[in-house]
Amino acid sequence: MKLYDFKMAPNPRRVRMFAAEKGIDLEIIEVNLGAKEQMADDFKAINPRLAVPALELDDGTVITECIAICRYLDEVQPEPVLFGTGPLGRATVEMWHRRCELEGLQAVAEGVRNSVEFFAGRAIAGPVDFPQIPELAERGKARVELFAAMLEERLGESEYIAGDDFTVADIAALIAFDFAKVLKIRVTDETPNLKRWYDAVSARPSAAA
Amino acid sequence: MKLYDFKMAPNPRRVRMFAAEKGIDLEIIEVNLGAKEQMADDFKAINPRLAVPALELDDGTVITECIAICRYLDEVQPEPVLFGTGPLGRATVEMWHRRCELEGLQAVAEGVRNSVEFFAGRAIAGPVDFPQIPELAERGKARVELFAAMLEERLGESEYIAGDDFTVADIAALIAFDFAKVLKIRVTDETPNLKRWYDAVSARPSAAA
Repeated sequence: MKLYDFKMAPNPRRVRMFAAEKGIDLEIIEVNLGAKEQMADDFKAINPRLAVPALELDDGTVITECIAICRYLDEVQPEPVLFGTGPLGRATVEMWHRRCELEGLQAVAEGVRNSVEFFAGRAIAGPVDFPQIPELAERGKARVELFAAMLEERLGESEYIAGDDFTVADIAALIAFDFAKVLKIRVTDETPNLKRWYDAVSARPSAAA
Repeated sequence: MKLYDFKMAPNPRRVRMFAAEKGIDLEIIEVNLGAKEQMADDFKAINPRLAVPALELDDGTVITECIAICRYLDEVQPEPVLFGTGPLGRATVEMWHRRCELEGLQAVAEGVRNSVEFFAGRAIAGPVDFPQIPELAERGKARVELFAAMLEERLGESEYIAGDDFTVADIAALIAFDFAKVLKIRVTDETPNLKRWYDAVSARPSAAA
């Protein structure tokens, strides 16, 4: 399986970290978003949405959307469990994962894509250009702080975000906070529960994938 | 199982339609968002995120986030299959469902919550107030049109959004277009494939749930 990837982007990193936790080796094909290689016709033939990650199976089938790829990899290699165990466990992971996506990753992305000069005119990934909205950047930053506060409380009750086990929710949140460094937001000792979790999750070998 | 619901809101409707397809009866508890009942202390004790839907199990456990609830219901009642069949089928449904959420439902929500007077000061659901951003409303409307164009093309190739079968992706997209009526965007004969699909999906008994 080939993963169309870009080392610096948060969504492909979610797939790399997920695959590393599963012990799945993927052939990495770097698409240099810095040089806008995702806009080229040869990549458009692979993913008309012009975004990474994209997973190409050995028969040429392409799966896009970060979590769709993770779910496919999860079927290929069910262990270790990263989407939860049992009906309630799986629903709990989905619930926390959604919060990490909607309140964490999306908030950071709104902040970064609407403020960083590189994304001028490209506030949304994909085939159509949209101008930056400075107010949305500010809102994004404010929401990242609220996300950190929510997790500070949550991680006072449980070791990982969705409970006792490391899951996809932790991957999403770690990558949200690492991406937030672009906004000069950092996890500090002022949120000790979050810091304890952040240091532990950052130290996993998969975090370097 | 009790579903904390609000008849007019799109996300609870996704759960009601999903449950109706599965033939699952839920005890409905209406939380009148029009009267801001989700802000009251008794609801805060059920969902501190102050949003519907929320599913309360018989033992008092509460699951929030629309798709986390749907995944739980899917485990309770696996048939009919709405999340896809087989590894590639499930990944394909997830891929299209994510597109319907990110490019459809979220675009409509950005349009509605940032333009309709009722949501003034409440552009994001949840415990913290955010002001409306008029540029985001305009961007949302533009993105809904792009979403319709993407599905017009897709539905020229397949009966339903993710392929031959009705899935959660169709639920998300139907509810996105119905919600878009608030923005005066309608599915018309100008997009015949989309219209064929929209009429078929709207006619399902679950669409009235």
